[in-house]
Amino acid sequence: MDASELAEQCVRVLHGRDLAARSLGIRILESGPGESRLSMQVRQDMCNGHGICHGGVLFTLADTAMAYASNSRGQVAVASTVQIDYLRSVNYPETVIAQAEETYRGRRKGSYQVSVSDGAGLKIAHFYGTVAILDKQVLDKQSGDIS
Amino acid sequence: MDASELAEQCVRVLHGRDLAARSLGIRILESGPGESRLSMQVRQDMCNGHGICHGGVLFTLADTAMAYASNSRGQVAVASTVQIDYLRSVNYPETVIAQAEETYRGRRKGSYQVSVSDGAGLKIAHFYGTVAILDKQVLDKQSGDIS
Amino acid sequence: MDASELAEQCVRVLHGRDLAARSLGIRILESGPGESRLSMQVRQDMCNGHGICHGGVLFTLADTAMAYASNSRGQVAVASTVQIDYLRSVNYPETVIAQAEETYRGRRKGSYQVSVSDGAGLKIAHFYGTVAILDKQVLDKQSGDIS
Amino acid sequence: MDASELAEQCVRVLHGRDLAARSLGIRILESGPGESRLSMQVRQDMCNGHGICHGGVLFTLADTAMAYASNSRGQVAVASTVQIDYLRSVNYPETVIAQAEETYRGRRKGSYQVSVSDGAGLKIAHFYGTVAILDKQVLDKQSGDIS
Repeated sequence: MDASELAEQCVRVLHGRDLAARSLGIRILESGPGESRLSMQVRQDMCNGHGICHGGVLFTLADTAMAYASNSRGQVAVASTVQIDYLRSVNYPETVIAQAEETYRGRRKGSYQVSVSDGAGLKIAHFYGTVAILDKQVLDKQSGDIS
Repeated sequence: MDASELAEQCVRVLHGRDLAARSLGIRILESGPGESRLSMQVRQDMCNGHGICHGGVLFTLADTAMAYASNSRGQVAVASTVQIDYLRSVNYPETVIAQAEETYRGRRKGSYQVSVSDGAGLKIAHFYGTVAILDKQVLDKQSGDIS
Repeated sequence: MDASELAEQCVRVLHGRDLAARSLGIRILESGPGESRLSMQVRQDMCNGHGICHGGVLFTLADTAMAYASNSRGQVAVASTVQIDYLRSVNYPETVIAQAEETYRGRRKGSYQVSVSDGAGLKIAHFYGTVAILDKQVLDKQSGDIS
Repeated sequence: MDASELAEQCVRVLHGRDLAARSLGIRILESGPGESRLSMQVRQDMCNGHGICHGGVLFTLADTAMAYASNSRGQVAVASTVQIDYLRSVNYPETVIAQAEETYRGRRKGSYQVSVSDGAGLKIAHFYGTVAILDKQVLDKQSGDIS
């Protein structure tokens, strides 16, 4: 299995188990070694008390993109510290896209940058996070639960 | 109306409109000027591909606590830049608590710190964020939609 | 004066007044609208108690790169919230490079990403920050002191 | 040697070797297990092109406070990811104080919060950072250089 096939398989397996992402309707557009591109349509039950998409929902989309990108190399990785910067608000029923790319990959730590944009391609949030890389394999059956 | 009554009323109004927070079952335990305490029970559909509560869901709880604390003084405030640091994982069906406190309040900017802990009181995440304070009132009917 | 000339002039003026950057030997390699590239040689008096370049000194280099990039369009901008992620340590007497690029520019807020690398081109730190854009001009004599 | 004596000795040893902190005139006001309080007087050569104390210098003070607090338990710790939020500017020749406290201490990771305030006690910056805890001892002679 080459790196691209491994990435696709890891992401497919993770997404299959990822009830949180699936309950938000998050879909995989692309995946590869160290990268992923996801989409999500803003629903009314994703909006906050100001009538705009909840920042937590946008964060969840970006965080999911980092999770898939960082687990795509086969080893389990979990978020460590993350920053999000909100640039524009977005509303029901727009579709938003999150694109994750790897900015660093060490033995125990990786860092990822995720750009979140709206349907018109305008950037709505910038996300940067680090992950801890564990001694477990995504495709190992036992690793379904890392807790 | 004094500051405590205003805070309670702002938070009640926001929570009433906040479909995203309510769809996660987020409940208000306490609210006051510049502070809030919320609870949420981890459900299976809040877990990720590793079988633990999705980081985005924990972020959404903390972000909601900051939103209620920062809007409790009457003026509309929206998240600007936020950082979250994950310390421990948490599982279905634990109940988690987010406690937000104001660390700074200027005319146009405020900053808030949110501590997220599990049922046993162990800290599971630390959240720090800044908000932009707008020229709108939470209790003004027109402000239902800030977009 | 076109955008490139304005950028060069703003950066030259700021660097001329920037005693902190100059006392660290920070030099301008390139500057343009929304971008800058600076270099600094690690000195022994920039090292910490562990014998490596102090994280604060690397931060100062990156922050200076953001300052020059964000002030290059003519309006005064000041740092608001910043995150730095340390990837590798660096020692006396290496030369480090900071490259800043604009990731967002609104009317009142901008965001910048700075990559810090060592002499061999290896990335040693990743910096991301937001600035507040003020109603002052860099080239206005009165703006020498914004306090 | 009890925890307080160990903390004081670690901090004294680190400060003795910390040429970067000493060249900024950073002084130890207090140190204890997981905490430290430092002071620094803003000099003209710490100011930037806007005539205010350079954000990198304030960061360096806060980062030093985190370094001393996180190394005070005997094991070497190095900064991993850090965020700083600037609230007010400060000028020559004010004295600023940084107070670091431990918000989490695990086996491999710790997190620290540092409050930076001016002479009047007004908060000028909020700093939050995580450190990686290494398998080395601060008081071990060999650990003078961790690179």
